Amino acid sequence: MRAPIQTAETICVGTELLIGHTLNTNSHFVARQLSLMGINSYYQTVVGDNPDRLLAAIRSASTRSDCVFLTGGLGPTADDITMAVAARAADRNLTLHEPSRQAILEIFTRMGREMTDNNLKQAMLPDQSIVLPNRNGTAPGCIIEFEQDGADKTLILLPGPPSELRPMFLEQVKPYLVQRTSRILRNTFVRMIGIGESKAETVLKDLIDSQTNPTIAPYAGEGEVMFRITQLAQSHDDPDNTGPLLEEVTKRAGEYIYEVGERKMHEVVADLLVERHATLSMAESCTAGLAQSMLGEIPGASRFLTGGLVAYANEVKREMLGVPAELLEREGAVSEACAIAMADGCRLLFGTDYAVGITGIAGPDGGTPEKPVGLVHLAVSDANGCETRVMRINGNRARVRGVAALNAFDLLRRRILG
Amino acid sequence: MRAPIQTAETICVGTELLIGHTLNTNSHFVARQLSLMGINSYYQTVVGDNPDRLLAAIRSASTRSDCVFLTGGLGPTADDITMAVAARAADRNLTLHEPSRQAILEIFTRMGREMTDNNLKQAMLPDQSIVLPNRNGTAPGCIIEFEQDGADKTLILLPGPPSELRPMFLEQVKPYLVQRTSRILRNTFVRMIGIGESKAETVLKDLIDSQTNPTIAPYAGEGEVMFRITQLAQSHDDPDNTGPLLEEVTKRAGEYIYEVGERKMHEVVADLLVERHATLSMAESCTAGLAQSMLGEIPGASRFLTGGLVAYANEVKREMLGVPAELLEREGAVSEACAIAMADGCRLLFGTDYAVGITGIAGPDGGTPEKPVGLVHLAVSDANGCETRVMRINGNRARVRGVAALNAFDLLRRRILG
Repeated sequence: MRAPIQTAETICVGTELLIGHTLNTNSHFVARQLSLMGINSYYQTVVGDNPDRLLAAIRSASTRSDCVFLTGGLGPTADDITMAVAARAADRNLTLHEPSRQAILEIFTRMGREMTDNNLKQAMLPDQSIVLPNRNGTAPGCIIEFEQDGADKTLILLPGPPSELRPMFLEQVKPYLVQRTSRILRNTFVRMIGIGESKAETVLKDLIDSQTNPTIAPYAGEGEVMFRITQLAQSHDDPDNTGPLLEEVTKRAGEYIYEVGERKMHEVVADLLVERHATLSMAESCTAGLAQSMLGEIPGASRFLTGGLVAYANEVKREMLGVPAELLEREGAVSEACAIAMADGCRLLFGTDYAVGITGIAGPDGGTPEKPVGLVHLAVSDANGCETRVMRINGNRARVRGVAALNAFDLLRRRILG
Repeated sequence: MRAPIQTAETICVGTELLIGHTLNTNSHFVARQLSLMGINSYYQTVVGDNPDRLLAAIRSASTRSDCVFLTGGLGPTADDITMAVAARAADRNLTLHEPSRQAILEIFTRMGREMTDNNLKQAMLPDQSIVLPNRNGTAPGCIIEFEQDGADKTLILLPGPPSELRPMFLEQVKPYLVQRTSRILRNTFVRMIGIGESKAETVLKDLIDSQTNPTIAPYAGEGEVMFRITQLAQSHDDPDNTGPLLEEVTKRAGEYIYEVGERKMHEVVADLLVERHATLSMAESCTAGLAQSMLGEIPGASRFLTGGLVAYANEVKREMLGVPAELLEREGAVSEACAIAMADGCRLLFGTDYAVGITGIAGPDGGTPEKPVGLVHLAVSDANGCETRVMRINGNRARVRGVAALNAFDLLRRRILG
C-alpha cells in the first residue's frame, strides 16, 4: 500500500513556453483538477528542453511534493527529453513497450504515412511504469511510482498538446488519483460588485482570520471582488458545512454579492433574462459593442438579446435613438440625461423589455476638468421607468470600457431583481 | 555601472494560480517581451502566498538568473506578501513612499471611496528602489537592484492584474531593461491572412532553415499567421540589414501579407479609413458587436466609426436594415444575399462611406447539414457596390466569432485598397 498523495506540483517542459510562444494552459488545467480533488499544490515550474535543468527541477519537485506532473517533451524529436530524464530521476531504464509501438504503428497506417525510426522512441517507456495510452496522438503518457529517500513518490508524464493531455488526465489519471487520495475540497466562490477589495476584507476580517474549516479567503478579480469559501471534507459522504459561513458573509455583505458560484456578471444577467422570458437591447457609445459582444459569447444568446446599437456618433444618438439635439447641446453626450434618452430610445426602437444605455469618456483623450476620462453614465430602461448609475473609472481605455460594461450589467441585474 | 542583464526569469505569486482559478497570462506576456529583447529565460515558477516558499523561490531564482520578475501579491490584504518578502530577499527595509501614498489617496478620492489603513501598505516600498507608479490601479511596482554573492541582481515587482502589469512593463520596465542589456535585437513582424501556417512555412522553409542574421521564424499569433524577422545588432548604430530578407518573403507570399509591423488587422483598417477620411458602420449578427468593439479599442475611433447595429433577431435585420422578409424566408439569415442586404441597408441607415455585414452560425447549436456551425457570410458595401466572402470556420464559438471579425476587416481592407 503506497502512501496517499497529499501534495503535487507541475513541471511544464518546453522552450516554446519560456519564450512566450505558447500560453501555458496545461498548468492551469492540472492545477484546477488537483484543487478539485483536495490535493495541495505549492509550486508550478516551467523549464526548457535541457536535460540538466529538467533533472534538477524534477529532483527538487519530488523532494518537496508527493507527486510531480510533467507535461510536454514526449514527442519524437531529439528535443523531446522528458521521458528519458524522468526515467533517470526515478532510476529506471527505458525499454520498448510493445503495445505502444503497435498503437503508434496503427496511427501511421491510418494516416497513410510511414513510421520513422524516431517515432519508435515514443514507445520507449520506463520499466515497471503504468502506461497511459493516448487516443488523440502518438505519445503515450505514463505513471512512475518510485521511492526517494524512503518516501513514496510518483511522477506522472502527460503529452503537451491540451487536446491529448486533457482526455488522458480525465479518463486515466483522475481515477488513479482518486484511489491515491481520500481528501476532498469543496470550493464556493462569492462574487461581489460595488465594494473595494480592502473594504470587503475589513468587513469580513474576523472570519478570514479565525475560520479553519471551512475557510474564507479573498480572491483577485478584474474589476470585481471575490472570496473563496473552502471546506476540507474527509470523504464524499461528509455533509457540506459551508452554509453557516456563507450565511454570515451574506448577512454582512449581501448587498454586494451578485453570485455564489461560477457565473460571471453577464452570465448571471443572461440567466435572469431567460428565466423571465425578457428581451434586451443595448445602446452603446464608449463601449462600442463590448457589452453586447459579451452576451454574444453565450450560446443561445438569441433567446434574450434582440440586438442593439453602437451609437458612437452624435447623429446616431439623435437620429436613431431620438436623443433631443438640445439635450446633447445642453448636457453633452456624456451625461445622465443622455444615458436615459439612449436607453429609452433603444427600448422603443427595438421593442424590448429592457434596454441599456452606456455613454462615457474612455480616453486617453477627450477628458475635461468637469468630465474627466473614466466618467461613464449608465441607464437601464423598462416599462416602469429608468434607473441610472454614474461611474468614475480609474485606468486605461480597456479598463474603463470593461468596468463600464460590468456595471451596466449590474445595473440591469438590480433592475430586473427589483 | 551595473553588469548587463542577460538572463531573467519570472515568479508569479498567487494561490489563485496554484488552484487553477486564474490562467497565468503574466508569465506568457513577460516571457514574450524578454524574448523580443534577447534576454534568455530558462525558468518560470508559480508559488502561493506563503512567505517561506516565496523567499526560497526568490533566492534560487536570483542565484541562477540576473533578473527576477515577481508578479502579483502587491494588493492591500494580509495575503499580499510579495513586497515584504522581496525586500527581505534583497536585505532592504520597507518605508512609507510618500508619492505613492498620495497617488493611492487620489485614486480613492476620485472614486469617492474612503482609503482604509491596509491600503497604506501598498505605499510601503523597499529603501533605495526604483518605484514604478501604477496609473491603472493602486499598487505601485518597483525595481530593486542589489548584490548577491558579489553579483549584480535585480528584482522587478509588478502588480498581478494584466491591465496594470502590461502598461507598467511597456512604459517603465522595458526602457529600463533596454539600458541594462548589451544585446540589441531588431524585430520585424510580418502578418499574413488567407494562408495556413504550415503552407506558409513550406513556402519559406529554406529561408527559415538557412538564414543566420537576420533570421526568420514562425511566430504564434492569435488566429493568424505571423513571422518574426530578427536582426542581432552589436550597437544601436548598426544599420538595419533586414531589407533583402523581407523583400524575398514579399516576393514569395506578398499577396497574403497585410502588415509588416505591429498593427493588427483592425488597426490597419482603422488607419486606412482615417487616411481616406472615410466613415464606417457595421451590421453584426453572429459576432454581436465584437468587430465594432475591436474598433472601439482604438483611441479616437470616432474619427471613422459612425456606429452600427447588432442585428441579432431577424426583426432587426428586416425592420432596421431593410432586409426583405421574402429574402430571409427564401435564403435564410445566414446567406450571401442576407449579408449583402445587411451591408447595403447599414450603409444607407448610417450614411457612411463603407458598411460591413456579418451573419453566420457561431454554434455550438443551430447548425444543419447545409449550413453547418462555422458557416459565415461577410459583405462590404460602398457607393460602387458590394463584395462578399464566405467562410467555413473550424473551432468553438469564440473562434468562429473571432475569425469572422478578422475576415470582415480583411474584406473591408481589400475593398478600400481596391
